[in-house]
Parts: sequence; structure tokens; C-alpha cells
Amino acid sequence: MVLVREAVGLTLRAERTSQGRTLRDVARAARVSLGYLSEVERGQKEASSELLNAICAALGLQLSGVFSDVSIELASHESVTLSVVDAA
Amino acid sequence: MVLVREAVGLTLRAERTSQGRTLRDVARAARVSLGYLSEVERGQKEASSELLNAICAALGLQLSGVFSDVSIELASHESVTLSVVDAA
Repeated sequence: MVLVREAVGLTLRAERTSQGRTLRDVARAARVSLGYLSEVERGQKEASSELLNAICAALGLQLSGVFSDVSIELASHESVTLSVVDAA
Repeated sequence: MVLVREAVGLTLRAERTSQGRTLRDVARAARVSLGYLSEVERGQKEASSELLNAICAALGLQLSGVFSDVSIELASHESVTLSVVDAA
């Protein structure tokens, strides 16, 4: 089962790389440690709501847009799961 | 600034009450404590991804649908913020 923190991490990493920015740059702008941001992007750490706001602000994103993308990411995994069940 | 955990809490509480279910019922089905679920619904505690899955499963909801609603909830607060700025 897919985890929300993994979908959040994938979404944030995709946005950062699409902007051509480094972990170091975004971590500094968000005032979080580089290691923390890296763990969040890899889905290994739950980002607190306050730090999610800081990371989204550093990326120039609104939370609603990020979570719309998270919802789409989650749905893509749910579809895969359903397909596997259908094929069984 | 609105927090993701507040939008998650509002969304989960709205869904539970629309189903006419009690905190006790959903907490038992999700195997979380009643106090934990109550704090999550009030936006006072960050739900871990694993427990979010358990709560959504207990409510018969897909994560993608819940986070689509969370995104809409977040957007409604962003709109209010923009309106206040516009009026200033």
C-alpha cells in the first residue's frame, strides 16, 4: 500500500528538479536541514505541517496545488493495485 | 496560514460524521486510540502515513479521494487569504 509521505516526497522532488534547483538551495530557502529535506523527498520522514509550509513556500508553491498532485500520485498507485487484483 | 494537518482533520471528521459514525467506532475499526483519532480530527496531531491508511480503510475511503478533498480544503483557505490581501 502506498504511503502519503512517499507521494509527498515524489511530488516535492519532481517540482524541485523541474525548477532545476538543488536540495541545498531549497533546504536553505526553507530553513530546514539538507538531510531532513532529502529524507522527506525519499519518503523516509513524515514532514510536519509547519515544515511542509516552509518547503512549499521555498518552492513558490501553494499547498493546495501540491496536495492536488499528491492525490494524483496516490490515485496512480491505487489504479495499479486495482489492475493487479483484476488480473488475479 | 492553514496547516495540512488541520485540513486532514476537517476532511476526516466531515467524512466520519457524514457516515453517521462515532469516534469510538472508527477508532476501533482503525485500531487506533479514540484520543489519537480525536486529536487528528481536531488538527492537533500529525497522523503518520501508516495510521492515515488505517483510518481511511476504516472509513472505506481511498487515500487519493481524501487528499483530493484536503486539496480543496486548503484551496478554500488560500482563496480567503488572497481576498483579504486584495481588499487591503
